[in-house]
Amino acid sequence: MNKIINPSKNIWSTLVKRASLSYEKIEPLAKAIFTDVEENGDNAVNKYSKKFDNVELDSLKVSKDEILKAIENVPHDLKLAIQNAKRNIKLFHKAQITKTVEVETQPGVLCWQKKLPIERVGLYIPGGSAPLFSSILMLAVPAKVANCSQVILCSPPDANGDLADVMLYTADLCGVDKIYKVGGIQAIAAMTFGTKSIPKVDKIFGPGNQYVTVGKQIASQYKVAIDLPAGPSELMIVADESANPDFIASDLLSQAEHGVDSQVFLVTNNTQIADKTIKKLINQLNALERKDIASAALNNSKVIYFDNYNDLIDFTNFYGPEHLIVCLEKNNEFIDKIINAGSVFIGNYTPESAGDYASGTNHTLPTNGYARQYSGVNLDSYLKAVTFQKISAEGLSKLGPTIEKMALAEGLEAHKNAVSIRLKSL
Amino acid sequence: MNKIINPSKNIWSTLVKRASLSYEKIEPLAKAIFTDVEENGDNAVNKYSKKFDNVELDSLKVSKDEILKAIENVPHDLKLAIQNAKRNIKLFHKAQITKTVEVETQPGVLCWQKKLPIERVGLYIPGGSAPLFSSILMLAVPAKVANCSQVILCSPPDANGDLADVMLYTADLCGVDKIYKVGGIQAIAAMTFGTKSIPKVDKIFGPGNQYVTVGKQIASQYKVAIDLPAGPSELMIVADESANPDFIASDLLSQAEHGVDSQVFLVTNNTQIADKTIKKLINQLNALERKDIASAALNNSKVIYFDNYNDLIDFTNFYGPEHLIVCLEKNNEFIDKIINAGSVFIGNYTPESAGDYASGTNHTLPTNGYARQYSGVNLDSYLKAVTFQKISAEGLSKLGPTIEKMALAEGLEAHKNAVSIRLKSL
Repeated sequence: MNKIINPSKNIWSTLVKRASLSYEKIEPLAKAIFTDVEENGDNAVNKYSKKFDNVELDSLKVSKDEILKAIENVPHDLKLAIQNAKRNIKLFHKAQITKTVEVETQPGVLCWQKKLPIERVGLYIPGGSAPLFSSILMLAVPAKVANCSQVILCSPPDANGDLADVMLYTADLCGVDKIYKVGGIQAIAAMTFGTKSIPKVDKIFGPGNQYVTVGKQIASQYKVAIDLPAGPSELMIVADESANPDFIASDLLSQAEHGVDSQVFLVTNNTQIADKTIKKLINQLNALERKDIASAALNNSKVIYFDNYNDLIDFTNFYGPEHLIVCLEKNNEFIDKIINAGSVFIGNYTPESAGDYASGTNHTLPTNGYARQYSGVNLDSYLKAVTFQKISAEGLSKLGPTIEKMALAEGLEAHKNAVSIRLKSL
Repeated sequence: MNKIINPSKNIWSTLVKRASLSYEKIEPLAKAIFTDVEENGDNAVNKYSKKFDNVELDSLKVSKDEILKAIENVPHDLKLAIQNAKRNIKLFHKAQITKTVEVETQPGVLCWQKKLPIERVGLYIPGGSAPLFSSILMLAVPAKVANCSQVILCSPPDANGDLADVMLYTADLCGVDKIYKVGGIQAIAAMTFGTKSIPKVDKIFGPGNQYVTVGKQIASQYKVAIDLPAGPSELMIVADESANPDFIASDLLSQAEHGVDSQVFLVTNNTQIADKTIKKLINQLNALERKDIASAALNNSKVIYFDNYNDLIDFTNFYGPEHLIVCLEKNNEFIDKIINAGSVFIGNYTPESAGDYASGTNHTLPTNGYARQYSGVNLDSYLKAVTFQKISAEGLSKLGPTIEKMALAEGLEAHKNAVSIRLKSL
């Protein structure tokens, strides 16, 4: 990890550069797959699954039997762990339920806002070396709290055409309605248009590689919403002498092991913490199974030292990290000044992995600086806010002239007439 | 207006077809303008303003003097109307403020969610024949309630290089920080990248023609968020014999006068209401100044009769109208079954134009069927939900084993280590 001392503000934008995404390169392939799936449905889906994932299946849908077998196969203690995580995630997302907002803005003019569930949601869970069942918890639990009427899940199967037992167990535990063995751009396209096997959805959630990410961007041009623009995972740690170098080294590595394009920053006003953490990092790194991935990620990563405490705050907000760990003497003072961050982990006993799995917060968070303007996935991601209004005859008699004047000033006579015709009838 | 009787469900998707948007055609021009503005800043902005809007300005920014003069010029009664509307809009959006959500999900594991303002927002207000100052109210008032630190506005000037007095008055009244005389794709590109005159923003709001709409879609590929995918305005009225044909004819026309691509539907289970409304519509239409626009819009529009009450509900939710007026004997029964709609207007004295201007609800709403998955602009559009967590040593000792088991099952050893190293230290 590169150590940088008191970088001046004019190089900050260079310092925080993220790995760039290759949208343009993938776009033509993705568009071709979308067109093919729109026209040829399951046939196209099966063709690309064979081509890219080397699987041929009789049925894309996971059967009840497969689920029952999977439930038997998951070890008891892992089940209990997943149930504990689910309980916490459900508690935290249930607490986000908002009541109807109702205001009589002036006498006889009643306005209210009510959140309604998005009906059909599709969850995408990537395949790969390990089964990412924690993402199922993070995406399916709030969907169920929100009362979405149809929750489906797509994930690419392994070479035998199977999904991991623990994935099926978790999806079933969370009440996912249907599970499909399909991945990649073809899965996103299938949920966008609907095929004979796979229903169309209104919104697509979930992480994925750059192909899936481009697929989701294209989906959003076809009247489907997506959760978040995705990018490689990030962690920033802000620490002073009150931090434990062994702990924060372990946190930096937990982020670095995600992928070679992960990015971690340690930002500190204490040189000893910087140096000690780098030492601890190297020790811990060498013992890791995913050492190669983590080492590569550390090449994108930096230790940054600032003399000035205010620079710690400014640099954090300038970066807008997906994950932010704060280990300072005065944590509260710092977190009150946070403007841009996805999720914040406070103090020595709050590792990022707590939020990744089980504390209750969501791990689907804005990367790539999007913490400036996007929320991570939360209950509202599965709801839409609809407004209602009911005006009494008396209410309109008072509000009407305001509307008439404004409509005329905008040159919209029929807008005025809709009020005038009613006022005249009174 | 075409009258259709008991359409069967298999033709519903044809019936509700919206005018299609021509993204692909405009995209190359829009991308070229974006690249030019990114590279050449104000020079490029000025070049396109001259080319497309035929204006050359010494300064893009509206001066304090211009604003003071504008304030003098706006008639007193129009000012009072705007102030009344502002008051109602502010009341309704202020009521949407949510408290921090805090949950101790298990002992020693404290999670909370807090909404933080998006720092820099840019509002786009279209030019054209009339000054759309109502959109300034709808976009700037919630930005200020949300406490966004920088609120800027772009709008194309007239041939003399001026913005309408009432626009400047309204923007000033709402506390807009800076106003720029620039429109079209070049305005969106300027807010995306920032130029010497115009600051970069984090999120762009506002309506616009198809050029601006494509510009906003491109902006969203450059780390800028946008409020909503835009489309032509729509109104659906669901009415039975309790409705007043004169009133609902006036509402249909108030929507139809927006533009030739506006779409209006009257859905009813009463043939007399259908026939009477069409008659009233023709009478009222002939008296309108914007008769030609409204007539053209009525060509995209339909009166639909259903025998079956449940079809009224199903068809409404199938369409997902931007605006929905409900005038039925039993309004409450119907509105409890609404799943997809942008904003709902209930009863005989609640014209859509009330919400367009002054009742307090927002008029920036999802069109084109996006009511399935998008909210209209509301307070949360200017905020992001950030999560926080703080775990005590005791809390981690209880939650830790859950995290360790899950991390190992996902093959992420360093995620487990970040917990284990802390548990060992206890």
